[in-house]
Amino acid sequence: MNAQQSDDLERNDRLACAMAAGRRIVIANVSPSVDGGRYPAKRCIGDLLTVEADIFAEGHEQIAADLMVRSPGETNWARLPMKPLGNDRWSAGIPLLQTGRSEYRLDAWLDQFGGHLRDLAKKREAGQAREVDAQEAAQMIAQRMKGAKGAIREALSAILDAYKRHTLEDRLTLLLAAETRQAMQAADNKSFSARSEALTVDVERRRAGFASWYELFPRSCGQRGRHGTFRDVITALPRIRSMGFDVLYMTPIHPIGVTNRKGRNNALKAEPDDIGSPYAIGGKEGGHDALHPELGSMEDFVALVEAARAEGMELALDFATQMSPDHPWLAEHPHWFRRRPDGSIKYAENPPKKYEDIVNPDFYADPELWRALRDVFLFWIGHGVHIFRVDNPHTKPFPFWEWLIADIRGRHPEVIFLAEAFTRPKLMYRLAQIGFNQSYTYFTWRNSKRELTEYLTELAAEPVRDFFRPHFFVNTPDINPFFLQSGGRPAFLIRAALAATLSGLWGLYSGFEICEAASLPGREEYRDSEKYELRQRDYSAAGNIVAEITQLNALRAAEPALQSHMGLTFYNAFNDNVLYYGKTDPNNPKLQERLLIAVSLDPHGVQECDFEVPLWEWGLSDHASVAVEDLLRGYKFIWSGKVQHLALSPQKPYAIWRIRPHGSGP
Amino acid sequence: MNAQQSDDLERNDRLACAMAAGRRIVIANVSPSVDGGRYPAKRCIGDLLTVEADIFAEGHEQIAADLMVRSPGETNWARLPMKPLGNDRWSAGIPLLQTGRSEYRLDAWLDQFGGHLRDLAKKREAGQAREVDAQEAAQMIAQRMKGAKGAIREALSAILDAYKRHTLEDRLTLLLAAETRQAMQAADNKSFSARSEALTVDVERRRAGFASWYELFPRSCGQRGRHGTFRDVITALPRIRSMGFDVLYMTPIHPIGVTNRKGRNNALKAEPDDIGSPYAIGGKEGGHDALHPELGSMEDFVALVEAARAEGMELALDFATQMSPDHPWLAEHPHWFRRRPDGSIKYAENPPKKYEDIVNPDFYADPELWRALRDVFLFWIGHGVHIFRVDNPHTKPFPFWEWLIADIRGRHPEVIFLAEAFTRPKLMYRLAQIGFNQSYTYFTWRNSKRELTEYLTELAAEPVRDFFRPHFFVNTPDINPFFLQSGGRPAFLIRAALAATLSGLWGLYSGFEICEAASLPGREEYRDSEKYELRQRDYSAAGNIVAEITQLNALRAAEPALQSHMGLTFYNAFNDNVLYYGKTDPNNPKLQERLLIAVSLDPHGVQECDFEVPLWEWGLSDHASVAVEDLLRGYKFIWSGKVQHLALSPQKPYAIWRIRPHGSGP
Repeated sequence: MNAQQSDDLERNDRLACAMAAGRRIVIANVSPSVDGGRYPAKRCIGDLLTVEADIFAEGHEQIAADLMVRSPGETNWARLPMKPLGNDRWSAGIPLLQTGRSEYRLDAWLDQFGGHLRDLAKKREAGQAREVDAQEAAQMIAQRMKGAKGAIREALSAILDAYKRHTLEDRLTLLLAAETRQAMQAADNKSFSARSEALTVDVERRRAGFASWYELFPRSCGQRGRHGTFRDVITALPRIRSMGFDVLYMTPIHPIGVTNRKGRNNALKAEPDDIGSPYAIGGKEGGHDALHPELGSMEDFVALVEAARAEGMELALDFATQMSPDHPWLAEHPHWFRRRPDGSIKYAENPPKKYEDIVNPDFYADPELWRALRDVFLFWIGHGVHIFRVDNPHTKPFPFWEWLIADIRGRHPEVIFLAEAFTRPKLMYRLAQIGFNQSYTYFTWRNSKRELTEYLTELAAEPVRDFFRPHFFVNTPDINPFFLQSGGRPAFLIRAALAATLSGLWGLYSGFEICEAASLPGREEYRDSEKYELRQRDYSAAGNIVAEITQLNALRAAEPALQSHMGLTFYNAFNDNVLYYGKTDPNNPKLQERLLIAVSLDPHGVQECDFEVPLWEWGLSDHASVAVEDLLRGYKFIWSGKVQHLALSPQKPYAIWRIRPHGSGP
Repeated sequence: MNAQQSDDLERNDRLACAMAAGRRIVIANVSPSVDGGRYPAKRCIGDLLTVEADIFAEGHEQIAADLMVRSPGETNWARLPMKPLGNDRWSAGIPLLQTGRSEYRLDAWLDQFGGHLRDLAKKREAGQAREVDAQEAAQMIAQRMKGAKGAIREALSAILDAYKRHTLEDRLTLLLAAETRQAMQAADNKSFSARSEALTVDVERRRAGFASWYELFPRSCGQRGRHGTFRDVITALPRIRSMGFDVLYMTPIHPIGVTNRKGRNNALKAEPDDIGSPYAIGGKEGGHDALHPELGSMEDFVALVEAARAEGMELALDFATQMSPDHPWLAEHPHWFRRRPDGSIKYAENPPKKYEDIVNPDFYADPELWRALRDVFLFWIGHGVHIFRVDNPHTKPFPFWEWLIADIRGRHPEVIFLAEAFTRPKLMYRLAQIGFNQSYTYFTWRNSKRELTEYLTELAAEPVRDFFRPHFFVNTPDINPFFLQSGGRPAFLIRAALAATLSGLWGLYSGFEICEAASLPGREEYRDSEKYELRQRDYSAAGNIVAEITQLNALRAAEPALQSHMGLTFYNAFNDNVLYYGKTDPNNPKLQERLLIAVSLDPHGVQECDFEVPLWEWGLSDHASVAVEDLLRGYKFIWSGKVQHLALSPQKPYAIWRIRPHGSGP
């Protein structure tokens, strides 16, 4: 065989291949799809998974498509017909009823009989249908009948019998009948069928996507200057639960190192009675699987886990990989730590910043380190903890987290990992892709209407919304936002309302409810930070916003539209100090009602403006009416017309309404 | 081994795997990338290929990355260092100097020594650098020296020798010197190196991306009512070339069927002397590889090909797959055509529209049909034609085109295929992805400032710009735009200026230069359409715009910024009837100068407005000055300040300026 013959043969192969398997039907831009399908999308149990894709073939060919879904552990695929949305986009939605990793893919094929019927109907309408057009359809029915069995074969046979007895006009009616289409669909051999690659969705328990967190230092829960204990935290539970919080997140509870211990207000040298930062983990009493003795015993801890559960709450623990120089692992596993030429172990640093009270291990020194860290999680899971807030995960290798989370969730699928990464956006998104179930965000630093609109639009749109579950903390022990420092009580109300209505996950660090904001001068840090000393507070102090927080959490519990970052739309309010948006339940897209929320961003003065009621979303005219319920005050009334007016004061800086078209039922 | 042991083993494997090959360094969102890398990006010879990607690892680790490029036929990869753009985005650009399909990919690795130097420099600045910090660097040098050879080893050895003789301050200077960094880079074993998948770019000849087309019906090139011939077209060449067109595109030149021939103005019945539509291809004289006898012989055709080449022009032929009922293939290959139950072959239709003078073959009847159509291209390539305008490709299967274009361009890489698909956007984009080198667009129907801005923004942005080369036709035999029908001569000037300055590819159909616009009432079709009869014109008729077209084409030839749809930015002109934009040469991103173009969209009256000179793009203040050259009139002057004023009249509805910062050299 010469080169020319070989070339020709290869060309023939390519032709045969293109005819047999070429992508006559294109399936593209499937949504949701995370990083090209490398990682799963995230949803919660009971969510509606809406899958969309571009599906088309050449010219006017008629297409049909199914969404195929395989639940965890199943071998069979469930099948659901997709519907065209226009512009070659197709969609189908299926409720997710089982936790674990489900697969989905799309099947599409040429609906040749459907296309023929479509043309036949148009010709009939134009008075152009002829006998031969009907005969062609009958021919297709006869052909499909050959491959059909049982009831379908009988149905097709009956259609053909009727066909023979009819005149042309009746034949057309018979061919265009729904029964004919259905029987032919059942007998369709799906020519030119195309199949998308399988994608995955991680279906988690409800609290992975909808929860309200309360953060505290357990050591501050004591009375009158006494170091707090787990028993004191049990005493605090009813107060926290009555505000509507369902996750209690505690800063680290392990022994605290003494070497290079930090003093009050992050002083380089601690005084003898300073208690140190709980993030300097490990001392002579033990490491990551030990308890700080002053907090109590393991029995006390388990009692707290159980007391929280009895209150309908759940504990979240803080996990930080770093160690104090006194952590037992430094002596037990010296090769996990890189020694410097002078024999020392480098403390943590980000020059010129220095963190002298902690050291980091070398992640590529030994797989045993990865296992040991994994075993810390298993240890606490064994003691009833299923939620972990991970400190600074972005400074540890991605493969470590990807492996660790897969390992843990392979054993305990209910476990939730929250990434506390405040770093460059791409790193934060990557951590979410490789497995973190929830993520800290930039919300804390987004204050203006433009900032909030841009950031929330990014979070609520593809591709981010599908893998990154934003957890909106209004403050943290590390972040005392300038907006709160300068805005007083109204600022706290504003930020709470934004966080509680914009995301399914929000949280606060204790002190927020009494509007605590004293700071180090010019910095976003708390004065007398609880990281380095006890902070005992009077939570019923005058000016507290406990009632407002309680109401917000109650609304969140009652309104599915407030239980997710999805389903968000910004609308026009003609005032740069008023953020105005709608929330709908993403799992109930056909529901007529929606929530409208207006929040003043000005803690200092009254803000008034006109705003637009989105009548166009129901196809209503600008003069139509909607039934309104003020969810904060309970009033019901009617808005007539697209443009309405509002006024928000520093005392009541937000409004939440439920609306639906007037006269559209309860 | 029990199940537990087996699980544990599997988990250990996963851990080993994550440590060894886990993606510690992420390379993502590589640009250009067409449909996830399934199809090549498109560029022309001499273009700069700028590749960008997100590249990052955890925390503050320092990364280095190279762009790797392999030219067609090469086995080795060229290597070019990438530079960080900020926000974890990296970039490198390389000129494409060889036609064919080049591959590119990215390599990234942990630059451990670079990261150490970065920290060392910061510590030195803060007065924190200690002996141990320098020693660590020296230790790294000693270690890399072990693996190095030759000159690099000697360089590292010399650095270490000098290191030993120095004091701390001098050691730091030595370590931070460029020579030290370079020697260490050369000796870097590139730990944790990551590699992106290889992507491809199709590098084509210049005319694939930059050309000005002139479309004509050769049969109309005769004199005084005589049917035109190829010899008549030769006579017309100097007129067309002198306007600056370099591609002459002729409607089909094949025998025309007589069965169901259409009459004048698309009449269902032809009169005996009607000449028929050249798109009803094939008659007793032959099919797709034959010539319409009245146009001339194959010798005449080849003479035209050569005459065009001698004028610096190139012929483009029209390729339409459909056939008249008289095409020889119907008798020679009856099984290529699907017979209806009454024995007839269905004519083309899109109910209720009917095209009685043509039939379409069944593309899945026989691979021989695909070969026969391919051979038609090979036949005309054999006669010197290397550009084909393909009629209605969107009504034929995608796999057919993908196979055919790959087959032809595998043999003849210089061949250019233009897709004449006016259909749904996703089909048009798909045709470009699977191989069409150029594409018709919606430009013809985009008239308002908003429409043009939105559409051009889509075409000039990723991902579209990389695979879809827009060919802007101002009119076609099928499209007599309403804007031209109602706007008179100024409308023709406006559309010519937009097409010629917004895309590297533009074209007109003859008659445009004399502002021909007589239409069928209320329709976008020409009255007495040339598709069904001869149209002989006086191209020097009063009111012609030959001089303006000639000037626009001359500017396109002189200005690289006008030779592509890329490098486009819209700026503010405070008038909804004035479109105002900048063009830069995408292959010369460092060039200071840019073109500014303002086009009035109003053919009926004078439009005036303020507009903004983009001083900010050079980092200049709002009061800075730019040197301006009016490219239409040749004047040179200075603009001082960001806001300038313009007035555009129907007689002179556009302005084109070249600007650069005042005093920045010639």
